Amino acid sequence: MTSPDSLKLHRPLDMHLHLRDGAMLQLVAPLSAASLAAAVIMPNLVPPITSLEQLLAYRQRILEAVGPLAASFQPLMTLFFQPYSHALLAAAQPHLFALKLYPHGVTTNSDSGIHHIQAAEPTLALMQDLGIPLLVHGETTGFVLDREAQFLATYQHLATRFPRLRIVMEHITTAAALSLLDRFENLFATVTAHHLVITLDDVLGGLLQPHLFCKPIAKRPQDRDALLAAALAAHPKLMLGSDSAPHPQHAKEGCGCAAGVFSAPLLLPRLAQLFDHHGALPHLQAFVSDHAIRIHRLNPPDKTITLLRQPWTVPASYQDASGLRVIPWEAGQQLSWQIAPPT
Amino acid sequence: MTSPDSLKLHRPLDMHLHLRDGAMLQLVAPLSAASLAAAVIMPNLVPPITSLEQLLAYRQRILEAVGPLAASFQPLMTLFFQPYSHALLAAAQPHLFALKLYPHGVTTNSDSGIHHIQAAEPTLALMQDLGIPLLVHGETTGFVLDREAQFLATYQHLATRFPRLRIVMEHITTAAALSLLDRFENLFATVTAHHLVITLDDVLGGLLQPHLFCKPIAKRPQDRDALLAAALAAHPKLMLGSDSAPHPQHAKEGCGCAAGVFSAPLLLPRLAQLFDHHGALPHLQAFVSDHAIRIHRLNPPDKTITLLRQPWTVPASYQDASGLRVIPWEAGQQLSWQIAPPT
Repeated sequence: MTSPDSLKLHRPLDMHLHLRDGAMLQLVAPLSAASLAAAVIMPNLVPPITSLEQLLAYRQRILEAVGPLAASFQPLMTLFFQPYSHALLAAAQPHLFALKLYPHGVTTNSDSGIHHIQAAEPTLALMQDLGIPLLVHGETTGFVLDREAQFLATYQHLATRFPRLRIVMEHITTAAALSLLDRFENLFATVTAHHLVITLDDVLGGLLQPHLFCKPIAKRPQDRDALLAAALAAHPKLMLGSDSAPHPQHAKEGCGCAAGVFSAPLLLPRLAQLFDHHGALPHLQAFVSDHAIRIHRLNPPDKTITLLRQPWTVPASYQDASGLRVIPWEAGQQLSWQIAPPT
Repeated sequence: MTSPDSLKLHRPLDMHLHLRDGAMLQLVAPLSAASLAAAVIMPNLVPPITSLEQLLAYRQRILEAVGPLAASFQPLMTLFFQPYSHALLAAAQPHLFALKLYPHGVTTNSDSGIHHIQAAEPTLALMQDLGIPLLVHGETTGFVLDREAQFLATYQHLATRFPRLRIVMEHITTAAALSLLDRFENLFATVTAHHLVITLDDVLGGLLQPHLFCKPIAKRPQDRDALLAAALAAHPKLMLGSDSAPHPQHAKEGCGCAAGVFSAPLLLPRLAQLFDHHGALPHLQAFVSDHAIRIHRLNPPDKTITLLRQPWTVPASYQDASGLRVIPWEAGQQLSWQIAPPT
């Protein structure tokens, strides 16, 4: 499938995506739906998605926002983790991919997150029995650089206590988190594209770059290098989850900027450039699709995306007629790969 | 001099201050001159201050900017470190407090900084002979959190090679830098007010706060705590150097923000609040004046500032008629101390 100048990706998936709602949903959803066969949709709206009714209504709004792309794009819906009954989970399961657990107060719209992991255990037991995966934003509220490392003990506790529960460490940023994958059979991980590229130096080593500010924050070069090496080597438990997280420009620039990198528009071209640069293009298919399909037994639409090694400049912004404006990652920069135009 | 509700500071000094030039100088210089007896003025203008003529002209512009406050405010002028001749240094010495050394590329307007410390040694030998202090922005261009730690070996080399050269580690941010003070007789340090208060958590642990983005970047709680403990204990080799570094609001908020915390307007009230909170008010005089006068044998104007334990709200911004606008540290927040109005 790989030639020097083009690459076909079969059923590419984004296992961690923020589509927001309202005007933002309208603006950003088509950008992901155009190049992905499916995406795991985060539930941290305001209020969060905590009922089947909300989930189905949100799914419907997503499908309407992507319009004709809905035929080849599957939103994999999630519930915001709360204590749930067996009845609710069983009823939701046909429409549900996973539950997303946020510790209280760790990121955007996590005010409804859980305070103590013990309170989660009855629901985790139900999920284990039903076969519903658990997706975790694994950070404490400690010192910003230590939050993921401090949470690793919780991952180990959960993986041991619920050995049949499929647990995904979302958007990992440290070599230490990566090392857990080899120690616990039921632990998996997603990693973003930007955490394979940037370190804290890129965020604030020169001028401060608010559009690279995200949670978890990018870490040390050694961490980035370990994540990148695992992705390039197609580590079988590591999946692409972009964590593309759009905010209006005014919320990213100014006094008190929101966390999130908006990577959706350039996700696959940027990854093709990265894997190509490191001579690992043949492993991109596994990273962006095969691993997730195997781990989660997914059946996304049969969609193939062709990428071309041809220069493409990332738009400076994406905006709608109302003036909503979002700045993408690497805005205005030229990439060496692009998605082939529809034939 | 200390009572529960007021504090007199005799000849308070800021041993590290950016006044800029032009309209910014006009706006910010009076704010420092009003409450300080003297301040060490950084030379990193564009182009940097590298001749006696530039130094004297800049000094004159500062005195004009502070107007009638010039009678009680002494700008302690610095040259931007370059290889200089004995003739130039000897001629400049009556008008010169110190030379400020910037490694190339480490902070605002450091493009003229030195690339290799060896190239500096002939000039350092001259400074040692003449008794001119060396002020150093001690960072490498390595990973942002390690830059100060990586530079410590250079401090040790300089302190050993030039044992009679008075070397000031500027704006230290780590416990490791602090520990050098006790090992080398000729090493001294300044610390900012904000590095006694904030950690990296305050910069990006919640929302991203561009007005707390500075170089060196704030570090871990353990580092902040070590610096604070030393300041509160009136460590005899540690001096206040605010590194107050104003930028126009548009350069601090937006895509690619400049480094610097503008602390000048609240410097003494904020320190009074901090020392008071920790029961260390009697040590503030030493930290903001006595140590520096002793170490550098200064003779600043005889000026006393009275601080009152009375609520004061930091202005949201400082601006001039042309629209130049600067956001201070803790803008809009209420402090528990204020400078007594002139009687």
